[in-house]
Amino acid sequence: MPSEVVNKDLQHERSKCTFNLEEFTVWWVGGKQKLADKRLIEIFFKNQPEFHDKVPLAYASHKEKYEETIRKATVIFSKTRKFLQEQGKYDARNYFETWDFLLGTGLIKEGNPFRLQYDMFIPALVGHANPEQQSKWLDRALKWQILGTYAQTELGHGTFLRGLETTATFDERTDEFVLHSPTLTAYKWWPGALGHTANYAVVMAQLYSKGKCYGVQPFMVQLRDEESHMPLPGIDIGEIGDKIGYKGVNNGYLGFDNYRIPRTNMLMKNAQLLRDGTYVKPASSVLAYGTMVFVRVIIVKGMAYDLSKAATIAVRYSCVRRQSCINPNQPEVQVMDHLTQQNKLLPQVSKAIALKLASDYLWQLYQETASEMDSGKLHRLPELHAISCCLKAVSTADAAQGMEVCRLACGGHGYLSSANFMTFYSVATAASTYEGENTVMLLQTARFLVKSWNQALKGQKLPSTVQYLSEYCGKTFRRLPWSDSLPVIISAFQAIVANKLKLANEHIERRKKAGYTPEESTNMTALELTKVAELHGRGFILLSAYELIEKACQTASVQFAVVLRQLCALVVYGEALQFAGDLLRFTTVSEGDIVKLQHKYEAMLAALRPNAIGVVDAFDYPDYALGSALGAYDGNVYERLFEEAMKSPLNQEPVNKTFEMYLKPLMRSML
Amino acid sequence: MPSEVVNKDLQHERSKCTFNLEEFTVWWVGGKQKLADKRLIEIFFKNQPEFHDKVPLAYASHKEKYEETIRKATVIFSKTRKFLQEQGKYDARNYFETWDFLLGTGLIKEGNPFRLQYDMFIPALVGHANPEQQSKWLDRALKWQILGTYAQTELGHGTFLRGLETTATFDERTDEFVLHSPTLTAYKWWPGALGHTANYAVVMAQLYSKGKCYGVQPFMVQLRDEESHMPLPGIDIGEIGDKIGYKGVNNGYLGFDNYRIPRTNMLMKNAQLLRDGTYVKPASSVLAYGTMVFVRVIIVKGMAYDLSKAATIAVRYSCVRRQSCINPNQPEVQVMDHLTQQNKLLPQVSKAIALKLASDYLWQLYQETASEMDSGKLHRLPELHAISCCLKAVSTADAAQGMEVCRLACGGHGYLSSANFMTFYSVATAASTYEGENTVMLLQTARFLVKSWNQALKGQKLPSTVQYLSEYCGKTFRRLPWSDSLPVIISAFQAIVANKLKLANEHIERRKKAGYTPEESTNMTALELTKVAELHGRGFILLSAYELIEKACQTASVQFAVVLRQLCALVVYGEALQFAGDLLRFTTVSEGDIVKLQHKYEAMLAALRPNAIGVVDAFDYPDYALGSALGAYDGNVYERLFEEAMKSPLNQEPVNKTFEMYLKPLMRSML
Repeated sequence: MPSEVVNKDLQHERSKCTFNLEEFTVWWVGGKQKLADKRLIEIFFKNQPEFHDKVPLAYASHKEKYEETIRKATVIFSKTRKFLQEQGKYDARNYFETWDFLLGTGLIKEGNPFRLQYDMFIPALVGHANPEQQSKWLDRALKWQILGTYAQTELGHGTFLRGLETTATFDERTDEFVLHSPTLTAYKWWPGALGHTANYAVVMAQLYSKGKCYGVQPFMVQLRDEESHMPLPGIDIGEIGDKIGYKGVNNGYLGFDNYRIPRTNMLMKNAQLLRDGTYVKPASSVLAYGTMVFVRVIIVKGMAYDLSKAATIAVRYSCVRRQSCINPNQPEVQVMDHLTQQNKLLPQVSKAIALKLASDYLWQLYQETASEMDSGKLHRLPELHAISCCLKAVSTADAAQGMEVCRLACGGHGYLSSANFMTFYSVATAASTYEGENTVMLLQTARFLVKSWNQALKGQKLPSTVQYLSEYCGKTFRRLPWSDSLPVIISAFQAIVANKLKLANEHIERRKKAGYTPEESTNMTALELTKVAELHGRGFILLSAYELIEKACQTASVQFAVVLRQLCALVVYGEALQFAGDLLRFTTVSEGDIVKLQHKYEAMLAALRPNAIGVVDAFDYPDYALGSALGAYDGNVYERLFEEAMKSPLNQEPVNKTFEMYLKPLMRSML
Repeated sequence: MPSEVVNKDLQHERSKCTFNLEEFTVWWVGGKQKLADKRLIEIFFKNQPEFHDKVPLAYASHKEKYEETIRKATVIFSKTRKFLQEQGKYDARNYFETWDFLLGTGLIKEGNPFRLQYDMFIPALVGHANPEQQSKWLDRALKWQILGTYAQTELGHGTFLRGLETTATFDERTDEFVLHSPTLTAYKWWPGALGHTANYAVVMAQLYSKGKCYGVQPFMVQLRDEESHMPLPGIDIGEIGDKIGYKGVNNGYLGFDNYRIPRTNMLMKNAQLLRDGTYVKPASSVLAYGTMVFVRVIIVKGMAYDLSKAATIAVRYSCVRRQSCINPNQPEVQVMDHLTQQNKLLPQVSKAIALKLASDYLWQLYQETASEMDSGKLHRLPELHAISCCLKAVSTADAAQGMEVCRLACGGHGYLSSANFMTFYSVATAASTYEGENTVMLLQTARFLVKSWNQALKGQKLPSTVQYLSEYCGKTFRRLPWSDSLPVIISAFQAIVANKLKLANEHIERRKKAGYTPEESTNMTALELTKVAELHGRGFILLSAYELIEKACQTASVQFAVVLRQLCALVVYGEALQFAGDLLRFTTVSEGDIVKLQHKYEAMLAALRPNAIGVVDAFDYPDYALGSALGAYDGNVYERLFEEAMKSPLNQEPVNKTFEMYLKPLMRSML
């Protein structure tokens, strides 16, 4: 057992902290009440032995991982539901969203197949089922009488929805749909919990009626018998095999062999199919955007939390680990005292905060837009869609990369499963391709930017997140006057976006004139366009961070405000140096200014160094949410690494059977 | 079973190829004889059913993975040794090096614990044991009568060798060394095969004699009884637990409790300890460099091969996969036809080639230097050490990142274990921290560059790889006149290195004048220094690629030369755009030139697109070396994905037991 005593270097670090941790934590989690709720559930989770692995699942077989994940997910859900109901705090619709940062990478490292119930199945019923259908299925889903998933992606078709092959052909004679997978590539492939867990699914399929295709529509489909769980006749179902992560999530495949469902299983809140086979169009086609934006806000916030957890582990380890002397004949220093280490880790700390603030900002935009939508105003939806697309792409890519920086900064030990970085990475990198592949996301944003640019050229007013484009539109090129104040640097990102967008637009137009179709011209300009969209997202993140931090500073204590502003400056300087080439192209920044900016950036690393432990402590993660031998609060890194190693089944016997079976015969074969 | 028929899109791609594949392959593998040898062993490997997994080890438990890896490694080694002996081609010293690209990520995906025997144990005996010791142990090791490893890294101490804590104290009374681990952090931690496989190890420990410490020395240590394989008394040994990859390699820990070995087990080729406890210094301290450089050449070459394999998989999949229309109302296009996809993958293809050529160049330098060393000339060793350090860092980082680009370019399917990308990534990213952590490596190179710069300032002649620094040294700043010819771009990288080195040097001097010690000043300038070292490595890679490709073009067919030069241009343009900010600072390149360079880069992507499949086919990897459902030669991607999924043990039964145990009770609990 690791000692109860906190590592003395960590004790020393904590004594140096200049700000009040609780003030930071209250701000970080979003208020005193939320912090109290969080601590309540944390203690509950901590004290349930059934929630914690005795032997890490990393040692189990694939099948055992699934089975143990189901056991754990079931007991965690049942007990926690009961606990929260007793506390009057159970919310049937977003149980998982609230506590996922404690479960997802800590208690249920292999991923939770039940998340599909809340993240996809229930929202799909809410979004697509009419009242009658909701009373039939939504209620049962909310009570967990049925377990569902959402089946859209096919083996041969992902982001491009129109390409889906599964058909739902209306049979007027029997008032049924015939679901069918005409090819192998039409098989549904990827939905979580689909393999062996769910017994229902909302399935997306091409609706055919009277020989005509009406595009992709949602259908409620029973997959397995409720009593025996056997797949129903006409259903070919199973799991898609081992993956990099989410090993307990039971992603599945699903094929239909002329499988019949009642006509009334088509979810008809929006489009409808009448008894006589007549198709009735939905009132508006943009409504579907809303849910997608909602999911992306959740993704961005999840990336922020997970990156902050990875950074917590790496910063703690780097304050315990000692390596290399700086001055000869003096002891080895804490790794965190090497400037190169600060340069790896502190930007991840500040990036996590910036991403969290961008997700807060996005959430605010979403809520404004959603309430406008309730009164029938849909005009801001495209803007919201555009900004959420690029933020999803930038946040998932940056978080994944940042986690790997954190891991590699822990040297070889970061490569151990007991360090737990791979769990974080496997979650972040999965998000780069699910819910819209990142490059496709950036192209969606770019399409909106090009459209906005052309609107501005015509003198039309632009929505708020792209309003800055108007300042550059139709004007002759002029470099933005440089200064290294944060607002000017953020404006510089906008100048870069505007100027690069102008160039991209010119290249598209030139290609059109040369005889390419508009679509070909856009495809040929895609590298410039994705870059512009990425930079638009980065500018939004920096602006969100700056504005929300300045807002927080209005009520923060002096000591806390100092740290917040340092974190903001670090992320802004860091991004600016990353894009120094673009600054040189589109602002008046000089070679000397870049050197000066590098010095300011390094000064900020030095300024934040003494509070590094304070900030990650203030993120306030219990040890089991980090799940890492390197990142525990007590800093007993080496004892924990050893303790984890001792759990390996191979270490339960001094000689493995392969010695007598293979090694000894091999060594004797050349005597 | 996947169909025997090749996917028609791949057939079409192959018909478009403009060059002779065999000509490329002969060049790539290094000559006709090498290609013949490679094909001989490939066919042998392919036809041994025992070498191939029936069910992927991804589904097995940790313990089973180890046990099956030992079985497979034993049978592969025994049978292959026999086969090669019959062919007269068995080379006891570098069996693994030769065929590792077929084994490492394909047949033995979990890593091969026997590699330590050849990569570390035998070289350690060759490098450190005197003739008498070699006759005692080296011969047994070469005959595999003993299995060994090399134990240097400790739980608390990695790259910084002086920090090692394990002690070897000479007991004059008994003529023995007492090996001891005074603390938990002194435990050896990480050596491959150490856990349960090896029975001997070369152990690095601090030599104490007569109360004085003589630094770290190598000792030959028996760990386990040869008959029973039981750990010997005084030896605490086991494995360090699950990791991201290399799950079969059995990395171990080792603690000594006053464990005694004869004095003559200290390896005394270099330093010696006499019977009376007198320490005799080695003739030269730089000799140890040689082996380290050798290992780094191997690492760089391995990165090149593994990146080329990952690129092969992704390019093939991208020519089979269809997604999104470019023009409306036309069929979905091959993903490879999207410019964004070309931009992801073709640079990985060309980067793999450039890294391979850089490793060839480095190998040549190594051989020249080694033959000089034989005649006592050691002066080029520091230069070789410096260039090998930065190439190790750049190649491992770029290969790992490039593999992830390849994986993500395959969308969700890249996340499946059956795509096999994680095997490649887990190998490449491990190399970023082993054999010298990358940041430390770059700082080693930087130290040499700073020293060279100061020598040049004094008018001294510099060795060949840094000679270019003299052109910039002591001169007033002048931007390099820009042109986008390849030699000028490569010179531009040298100009960037020189100018940044000058700045870094000035910052070090300024800090020294401000009262910091030289070491503190260097630490404070470390961000600039690591960047300079990285760019020096990149310049070397580009120069190697350019020179060796131009050399190859002298004898190549016209068609082949065209493709080779396109690949070279792509990698040079790509790197230049990556560092556009530095070009803008240190050359006369203009904003318009950057736009023009971007167009040239994109034109090169378009030019290479028709030969993409040709080039990856010419890398000539058999399917089992790629081990990927997405990358097989026949392109039957979907059939293979499905076939792999069907191997999952979860798919062997329609209903998993967790339904009755957990899911059903849960669903009934709210009825």
